[in-house]
Amino acid sequence: MLLLLHRPVILGLRQAFRLRSTSSRLCIQTCSTNDSFQPQHPSPNFCGDNYSTRGWKVMGALLGLGAALAYHDHQCRASQDSPHVYTKEEVSSHSSPETGIWVTLGCEVFDVTEFVDRHPGGPSKLMLAAGGPLEPFWSLYAFHNQPHVRELLAEYKIGELNPEDDVSPTLEISDPYANDPKRHPALKVNSQRPFNAEPPPELLTENYITPNPIFFTRNHLPVPNLDPDTYRLHVVGAPGHQSLCLSLDDLYKFPKHEINVTLQCAGNRRSEMTQIKEVKGLEWKTGAISTARWAGARLSDVLAQAGYQLSDTEFHVCFEGLDCDPTGTAYGASIPLARALNPEAEVLLAYEMNGQPLPRDHGFPVRVIVPGVVGARHVKWLGRISVEPEESHSHWQRRDYKGFSPSVDWDTVDFDSAPSIQELPVQSAITEPRDGETIESGDVTIKGYAWSGGGRAIIRVDVSLDGGLTWQTAELDGEEQRPRKAWAWRLWQLQAPVPAGQKELNIVCKAVDDSYNVQPDTVAPTWNLRGVLSNAWHSVHIHVSP
Amino acid sequence: MLLLLHRPVILGLRQAFRLRSTSSRLCIQTCSTNDSFQPQHPSPNFCGDNYSTRGWKVMGALLGLGAALAYHDHQCRASQDSPHVYTKEEVSSHSSPETGIWVTLGCEVFDVTEFVDRHPGGPSKLMLAAGGPLEPFWSLYAFHNQPHVRELLAEYKIGELNPEDDVSPTLEISDPYANDPKRHPALKVNSQRPFNAEPPPELLTENYITPNPIFFTRNHLPVPNLDPDTYRLHVVGAPGHQSLCLSLDDLYKFPKHEINVTLQCAGNRRSEMTQIKEVKGLEWKTGAISTARWAGARLSDVLAQAGYQLSDTEFHVCFEGLDCDPTGTAYGASIPLARALNPEAEVLLAYEMNGQPLPRDHGFPVRVIVPGVVGARHVKWLGRISVEPEESHSHWQRRDYKGFSPSVDWDTVDFDSAPSIQELPVQSAITEPRDGETIESGDVTIKGYAWSGGGRAIIRVDVSLDGGLTWQTAELDGEEQRPRKAWAWRLWQLQAPVPAGQKELNIVCKAVDDSYNVQPDTVAPTWNLRGVLSNAWHSVHIHVSP
Repeated sequence: MLLLLHRPVILGLRQAFRLRSTSSRLCIQTCSTNDSFQPQHPSPNFCGDNYSTRGWKVMGALLGLGAALAYHDHQCRASQDSPHVYTKEEVSSHSSPETGIWVTLGCEVFDVTEFVDRHPGGPSKLMLAAGGPLEPFWSLYAFHNQPHVRELLAEYKIGELNPEDDVSPTLEISDPYANDPKRHPALKVNSQRPFNAEPPPELLTENYITPNPIFFTRNHLPVPNLDPDTYRLHVVGAPGHQSLCLSLDDLYKFPKHEINVTLQCAGNRRSEMTQIKEVKGLEWKTGAISTARWAGARLSDVLAQAGYQLSDTEFHVCFEGLDCDPTGTAYGASIPLARALNPEAEVLLAYEMNGQPLPRDHGFPVRVIVPGVVGARHVKWLGRISVEPEESHSHWQRRDYKGFSPSVDWDTVDFDSAPSIQELPVQSAITEPRDGETIESGDVTIKGYAWSGGGRAIIRVDVSLDGGLTWQTAELDGEEQRPRKAWAWRLWQLQAPVPAGQKELNIVCKAVDDSYNVQPDTVAPTWNLRGVLSNAWHSVHIHVSP
Repeated sequence: MLLLLHRPVILGLRQAFRLRSTSSRLCIQTCSTNDSFQPQHPSPNFCGDNYSTRGWKVMGALLGLGAALAYHDHQCRASQDSPHVYTKEEVSSHSSPETGIWVTLGCEVFDVTEFVDRHPGGPSKLMLAAGGPLEPFWSLYAFHNQPHVRELLAEYKIGELNPEDDVSPTLEISDPYANDPKRHPALKVNSQRPFNAEPPPELLTENYITPNPIFFTRNHLPVPNLDPDTYRLHVVGAPGHQSLCLSLDDLYKFPKHEINVTLQCAGNRRSEMTQIKEVKGLEWKTGAISTARWAGARLSDVLAQAGYQLSDTEFHVCFEGLDCDPTGTAYGASIPLARALNPEAEVLLAYEMNGQPLPRDHGFPVRVIVPGVVGARHVKWLGRISVEPEESHSHWQRRDYKGFSPSVDWDTVDFDSAPSIQELPVQSAITEPRDGETIESGDVTIKGYAWSGGGRAIIRVDVSLDGGLTWQTAELDGEEQRPRKAWAWRLWQLQAPVPAGQKELNIVCKAVDDSYNVQPDTVAPTWNLRGVLSNAWHSVHIHVSP
């Protein structure tokens, strides 16, 4: 398995060199013209070269070190009983499965050979640090700065760096997130770097169309700063057809389509899974979902111009973003060609969100909108489209955003055994009242949202005041949904008398879609190691003042 | 609401006259050329004519009386304290909402005016008996011969018939089910008239393709006896196009398509809902589902020949069977035109089942196969196809085969408030071991099936030996499923060691489809008054011999 990772690592490091003195615009060009990964062809030359030690300095120069350096200072001062001492050269020679995989954090050295395959972010990400310091990556993926991650790492400690070595991994320190846009203060931030945030529930269902500033934001990397004048979308043509290189003006010439579409992160409501058992992922509550009116060109029109026709062949349309990690690897994902070419599926290359150019956090200047499909496929800052016989080889397509049985853990997971999440299951949640709130006796007004994947309409929302013993039917608000194209949510509410003498209410909601799919009763049987697809009945406990 | 029923009743009675001396083949012609219902135009002449009394004799002549006559004899001998006595003429004058709606059973007279709207089979069915005897209908729908139905009827008793009147409703008695085909003795019969039966679970999953003789049978009416030489399928043409009148040979000339498709009755596993609270419907266990290889012409090809093209308009394709009730009303159902015209949806007009001409119980000579959709839309003995701006007005489309909240009962149900069931939700069940079985300690082999509607593939089946606390993943057998066209089930099995010391096992299964929809944990929150869509986790309790 690890052998398969060599070539991407090499490609990544080569790109890192190219990045040394590039502007972010240059980075865009690198990503958008880069060949897709071919991990099935490992490079025989990797182990012998000295790319890695030089690579780290380059990458370090591009990355900030943040809080990780504080940890470094602290650990270096702590005494240890004659730890084994290694030079940086020794560490850098351990960067492959054959030699063992070592990394450093501050002055400490770790042998993570056994851990690589279990790295929650995927082995390829950890391999980027093989033979060198973790700091540049922990700076990028700041959620590593947590006690349980450090504890886990401590198990693999084998010694310390030679104190005579300069353990500062970089000379030039910059913050890759320094150019991120400013955000609305109402957003509840789950992670600053990369930026991930959700609107508070009361604001979420105040409007059928979510205002742009509070639309939930799910970034995997720093936000690229793209120049609309020089922006180009590269579309690899069908055999016998020319590839397209489309400017924004070129995209505007395609017929403009507008649709209301709800986007939901696969991790929406993950925090409820965490209560069952720890999972890896951001602690989304009920707000990793929002609805906007998107406008743009139909992907089917653009693909037709590039020479693609609907055929029986099961191909995939791969998207690459212009948001790059330190190696120049772009965010990527794919959808089936059949969906992309089906005009009824209404897949958009969107350049407007609620009548405005896309905000930077939402993919300026162009993103994919795949109605009825998990947010992870709506690739932002779109740079490249290609049609391939296989799904995208991106980490986010192959090693993430998949659902597993509750019995599967990081030791047993086989990512190839589950399909990538595309259409999402039926979902609903209560946004008012809030969990733990105290209400007056009399009537209680309960509000929330409901949505299902694949264009399936919401036909009913049942609400219970007694934990699911008896049910009332909520009133559906917002726009009517179109048959087979119910891309946007229904908001709902129920006004119900509080049963006399009741001091507490266990309010529960569940939705039904037009395939009569329902939500599962409880969270535990749907628990999975990544905490995705959390769609059990949603409940809030409230108190009634006498 | 009742006013809306007049015209169908008249149409029905008129047809009953035509039936007086017809063969079943003539009945076919009547059904297949009959206009569809227009219940929005009540006839002002209904109340004044005398169709009804004459009609009963005709219908009685066509129908057997079965067990209902025994009840009649018994009740007439029972003494009553001077009951009010009515003549048959008086009864027959009460056949509309204006006059009140009376019916008789044996010598007893009932005023069912208030009950008509709550009749589980639909008001129109009960209105067929307005002003006359129930026997001809109870003979056709034999499940009425149950104590709780008689008790319910007794509440509406207003008197008795004049003993001088001849209470035998017919002179000629025949059994409309006398020509039904012979069935395989392995089938577990839920109802003889109409015939409804399922294979035992062990046989069900013995083969990926269910053998024809044990394929579950769901009939609503007697099985028509159709002559393949004179059989004609009437296809109403698009505006500006000729209607088609297709013989079997004409159908054979369309390209022949073959696909494996699982059919499931909406009422599969209803018996589990009955355990929560009484529902109206046949007591299906886990066997109202089977899989066959169907061959026939594509509906999209036939509709194209009749001049239909894919458009945005939300029309419906209405099907009428050649199975008629006493009034000549055919079984009917509809599907959206978008599905019918989509070649990817692969809707068939099937004339072969597992390489044989369709068996009579399964629609000989032609039935509709709508992959991924509830069995009720796969109209058998297909006589007529029309494209309409609205769904079929059939009882089975509008007043049945819909799902409601557990809080809805027969007093509060609004059938228009829920969509007709089309695609079904994800489903799975255990077929081995059987509930209550005793197994040896050591290993237990658990088998079952899993399927989802809409062409969604089964990606995983989880099995628990401890009622859902811990899970193991079953092995999927049978053919691989195609993306988006997973029309046929997956069989599955799990061999697992029985935990040491365990005396009982609570085995549970749940399936996940490729939209990551899951089955609900428990039955009660999905309970509905018709007992359809029963897809909670399936469980069997077994004993382990020491």
